[in-house]
Amino acid sequence: MSKLSGLLPRRHLLVGSAATLAGAGLATVSRLAHAQAAPKPLPAYVSWKEASNLIVHSGTTIETKRAAFGTSVITPSDQLYIRNNLPAPDASIVADRDAWAVTVEGVKSPRTLTVRELKTMGVETTAMVLQCSGNGRGFFPSKPSGTPWQVGAAGCVVWSGVPVRDVAEALGGVVGGMKFMTGTGGEVLPAGLDPKAIMVERSVPVSAMSDALLAWEMNGQPIPLAHGGPLRLIVPGYTGVNNIKYIKQLAFTSKESDAQIMSHGYRIAPPGSKGDPSQPSVQEMTVKSWINSPTPDRGSVAAGTVQIVGVAFGGLHAVTKVEVSTDGGKTWGVARFVGPDMGKYAWRQFVFTAKLPAGEFILASRATDADKNVQPEMRLENGGGYNNTSWADHAVKVTVA
Amino acid sequence: MSKLSGLLPRRHLLVGSAATLAGAGLATVSRLAHAQAAPKPLPAYVSWKEASNLIVHSGTTIETKRAAFGTSVITPSDQLYIRNNLPAPDASIVADRDAWAVTVEGVKSPRTLTVRELKTMGVETTAMVLQCSGNGRGFFPSKPSGTPWQVGAAGCVVWSGVPVRDVAEALGGVVGGMKFMTGTGGEVLPAGLDPKAIMVERSVPVSAMSDALLAWEMNGQPIPLAHGGPLRLIVPGYTGVNNIKYIKQLAFTSKESDAQIMSHGYRIAPPGSKGDPSQPSVQEMTVKSWINSPTPDRGSVAAGTVQIVGVAFGGLHAVTKVEVSTDGGKTWGVARFVGPDMGKYAWRQFVFTAKLPAGEFILASRATDADKNVQPEMRLENGGGYNNTSWADHAVKVTVA
Repeated sequence: MSKLSGLLPRRHLLVGSAATLAGAGLATVSRLAHAQAAPKPLPAYVSWKEASNLIVHSGTTIETKRAAFGTSVITPSDQLYIRNNLPAPDASIVADRDAWAVTVEGVKSPRTLTVRELKTMGVETTAMVLQCSGNGRGFFPSKPSGTPWQVGAAGCVVWSGVPVRDVAEALGGVVGGMKFMTGTGGEVLPAGLDPKAIMVERSVPVSAMSDALLAWEMNGQPIPLAHGGPLRLIVPGYTGVNNIKYIKQLAFTSKESDAQIMSHGYRIAPPGSKGDPSQPSVQEMTVKSWINSPTPDRGSVAAGTVQIVGVAFGGLHAVTKVEVSTDGGKTWGVARFVGPDMGKYAWRQFVFTAKLPAGEFILASRATDADKNVQPEMRLENGGGYNNTSWADHAVKVTVA
Repeated sequence: MSKLSGLLPRRHLLVGSAATLAGAGLATVSRLAHAQAAPKPLPAYVSWKEASNLIVHSGTTIETKRAAFGTSVITPSDQLYIRNNLPAPDASIVADRDAWAVTVEGVKSPRTLTVRELKTMGVETTAMVLQCSGNGRGFFPSKPSGTPWQVGAAGCVVWSGVPVRDVAEALGGVVGGMKFMTGTGGEVLPAGLDPKAIMVERSVPVSAMSDALLAWEMNGQPIPLAHGGPLRLIVPGYTGVNNIKYIKQLAFTSKESDAQIMSHGYRIAPPGSKGDPSQPSVQEMTVKSWINSPTPDRGSVAAGTVQIVGVAFGGLHAVTKVEVSTDGGKTWGVARFVGPDMGKYAWRQFVFTAKLPAGEFILASRATDADKNVQPEMRLENGGGYNNTSWADHAVKVTVA
């Protein structure tokens, strides 16, 4: 259970030990922090990243440390998380980026287009929260299988490429009756296995094409191989897996992909069970926020005025309000947004100024989006540990001295 | 002379050889491109930068290649230009960033404040064009002394720190009669020389404090030593030199600094002469734009639809319009802005879609700001080669095949 207030007596929330706070996910944070004591090295394909800002879970799952998030809106590429369902293709595919080709199906005039051709068809730039469907899984006491991400399987990234709608229009428009936009990744599939069982192919509602890009640039540079270069499908507001790396086919389809990653993967299954096609798919992101400073791993905080800062986003809707609590959710005050507003798909930085005397405090943040959705206190329990937006789980306990 | 149209017959502009285009600065571009054939290595203190995107003029002057600018608004730190008036201090000053101290003078209660203390006083985030006063000097046919920058002594950077106005207010406010905000850099001065002759100390009008920051973060990470960390004075809208690195003193003063870099450096002097205090100081930036793609160094362009992209900014005012010409300035069309608007001090990306047959074309861009200032055709000739905003100088000749 994630219920931080209500189930636990208030006094425990303010002075509680790690044991009493286990239900709030704070013990999980301690456990994970401890696990960082012997860090794994960065794999070679991301050796250009800043190791000190990252937690290496495995060769294909690397998380940004909570203390590494700053207040400058954009997440630098060298500390952006990595989550690859399959190993990245050989680096030879980024040797001649403009030669990479994507086949477009489900339009009146299907065609294979190179990046060179796509670059003549239009240019758009979109800032967007890229977040793994399982970000926050590490706060589930049920320990679902999968990477125990805390907050760092997310970043705010700027993408540049051609709008999918421009490409579709140039090819005569989408064929009638197509309900989905289906992207297929260009990963090399291991031989001898059923391709459908391992390929990365995801479908999103065709309506998502309106803001989607076929992108060749990330944060001002050609998309690194590790992040899907030379060409990545960008679907703003949708979880990371829907943003297909090394995209080799973009199809407008009448049905969802029958690849296993779509039919059984990323489903909201009952706790303890696996996904199947009858369950809701993990797709659109919803309103979420968390505090990045102060946090326990940044050390103790001096009594007096404290600037509590964090990030907030709405998924498909702009974030419009963030409230901050210094008493574990008993009382809340409205935080101030700072910095540039990079559009509804980006996150915003919030700041809440508090006067804190010596003691221990549970700091929490709660965001509201333009559709009046409020970040929930409790996570939705599910077998895969997806979509954790619980403000209680993301609360932090800090010591003020 | 920079006058591209008018002085030169139109037919020469469209089919001109490098010789006939010398007056337009295009020969200069060729000359500089040639000089890049044997690149200098990156100095050790910026070895973390992406060498392939940079032109190393000297150990303290490093430029971003025109072809390295993308369309994602922010300039990544690893390809941002370097221009240091003095060598960077020892890296030991970033070992304990929060311990760095700045003395604030000219307020009712002068004090020395550590970065740790500043972080409790407020947080703001500002995106801003950082541009060397001499950016574009390479296009002056008079070859003024100083680095022959083309377009790459500029970038759009996000800074995070405490607003100077919050610091001043916390210290009782600025003392009456103070007309300037004067920052002093923390560089180590060589012994045996008059400090005033070499120190980095600059004054800007006190009005500039309203949007100024004492910043500790750049593009989402602690400010690198090479860019002025642990603490840099950020004065949005003012040229690079006014954004004091390793700031050790911030003083509100009744007079401008008498350091030589202020009294004689960065002055608009008559061509062929050096600066003195009687001449205007190089301070506020003014409206400017340039095309980053296509350019000659990106190779030939395929006939057909071409996306002409670039950046535009207004200095102290937001940029509101960009026009693009494909015939050397004879005719113009209005470009479209793309991507997030990060505020009036940031640059914006523009895109102009043109249909170009085979041939040679002179591509130019011309920006207008919110105060209706229009980017001029001609540079203002001056001895130091400062403030080159000429659209003719920034035009590029491309071959469409």
